[in-house]
Amino acid sequence: MSAIKDSRNINFNTKHLRKGDPLPPFNGKLRVYNMRYCPYAQRTILALNAKQIDYEVVNIDLIDKPEWLTTKSAFAKVPAIEIAEDVTIYESLVTVEYLDEVYPKRPLLPQDPLKKALDKIIVEASAPIQSLFIKILKFSDTVNEEHVAAYHKALDFIQEQLKNRGTVFLDGSEPGYADYMIWPWFERLRAFAHDERVRLEPSKYSLLLEYIDNMLKDSAVSQYLIPLEILAKFHEAYTKKERPNYELLNECLKSF
Amino acid sequence: MSAIKDSRNINFNTKHLRKGDPLPPFNGKLRVYNMRYCPYAQRTILALNAKQIDYEVVNIDLIDKPEWLTTKSAFAKVPAIEIAEDVTIYESLVTVEYLDEVYPKRPLLPQDPLKKALDKIIVEASAPIQSLFIKILKFSDTVNEEHVAAYHKALDFIQEQLKNRGTVFLDGSEPGYADYMIWPWFERLRAFAHDERVRLEPSKYSLLLEYIDNMLKDSAVSQYLIPLEILAKFHEAYTKKERPNYELLNECLKSF
Repeated sequence: MSAIKDSRNINFNTKHLRKGDPLPPFNGKLRVYNMRYCPYAQRTILALNAKQIDYEVVNIDLIDKPEWLTTKSAFAKVPAIEIAEDVTIYESLVTVEYLDEVYPKRPLLPQDPLKKALDKIIVEASAPIQSLFIKILKFSDTVNEEHVAAYHKALDFIQEQLKNRGTVFLDGSEPGYADYMIWPWFERLRAFAHDERVRLEPSKYSLLLEYIDNMLKDSAVSQYLIPLEILAKFHEAYTKKERPNYELLNECLKSF
Repeated sequence: MSAIKDSRNINFNTKHLRKGDPLPPFNGKLRVYNMRYCPYAQRTILALNAKQIDYEVVNIDLIDKPEWLTTKSAFAKVPAIEIAEDVTIYESLVTVEYLDEVYPKRPLLPQDPLKKALDKIIVEASAPIQSLFIKILKFSDTVNEEHVAAYHKALDFIQEQLKNRGTVFLDGSEPGYADYMIWPWFERLRAFAHDERVRLEPSKYSLLLEYIDNMLKDSAVSQYLIPLEILAKFHEAYTKKERPNYELLNECLKSF
């Protein structure tokens, strides 16, 4: 499991802090308030990893939040990045655009305004994938044909973009903004391959499936990847309306 | 009603095209696919007006959409801007960021990355205002305490931002990105002042009410403003689950 840490030696799997836990003192290093299984926070992590920025992770228990969280993120959500003590930026896409602007190495967004807009359109177009995921996780009974149709329309759109661009990734020969911002849901949907509402049929989605395979090999993605079995177990708590175990991955890693 | 047109002589109130109506030939001028009462499309219009960009409006009947709409906007939504024949950009915030980049006159987004991020956070924070509006319009019975609380939290956050910044508008002495991107819902919520779930109590929201008054005087806003009575009548159709009359404003203007 050494791939979990990279050369910057970042610990992604710190304990998820909860009510009563003190705020770790800010030591000047860029900090991410994160939740290890949160797809939105993962966007920020992927951008940081792709750009090889050094940072520290403060994981948050989102069921039993620490009192100080609202002083870092007004609506007590993750991700939030702390760029200087008590100077924080939140909302996943906002953090990524900020990082891309301030750390120009390995730009993620295209420079050309039209190409940049098209990348952002892809990310917006992925909304039905996000919402089907959360519906299946929390309100599986309420999923109707309309939701599934919107999901497939979004998948079709993304696959069509891949085809038209003719590149390995949406952003070229290596992943960029569009790729990383939609990735967390593709990663998670792999855990629902048994659900026919979600499954990507190889006959229809061969290009998209190949793309997912390529994304899995990208180092920004692979170093943060959660084993499928653990992802499935984490999600199980939601479908059973139980408290999720935020330390699943830690407990698993300790057993090695 | 002369304020409806400005010096660029843009007709905002073209007939809403529907199935069977031909696509107006593209004449090289920047085009906006719009719906006169759509708050998202209004964001694009406000940016264009503030920046004094010349453009033409193609209004769309969103209940009975023209066949060609998906060739301009993949998900058949408005707004979409056509920057060259068949080169279109959609999703409201994406169009505005594109326009702000390509037409640098009267910048709307702050140049500083942190200030830019904070503006975008305000826009994201306004989501509960948007969703309460749409819920009250379409599913008023389902509005619960949680929705209303989230709405007030968003209002509190925006008012707090105004107070901390100490400026007339969120973006300074004239409106900018944050102001224009949240404005359409403040404009519409005025039509629901009779609803105590929505009403801004003067004792609690005096600064926000003053801000709304100031926004109403801005020329980008005022030239596109829909009279409150017409807005209320348009919305009434939704609450009654009837087909909205997209030509209400036109019919009203003709009677003068």
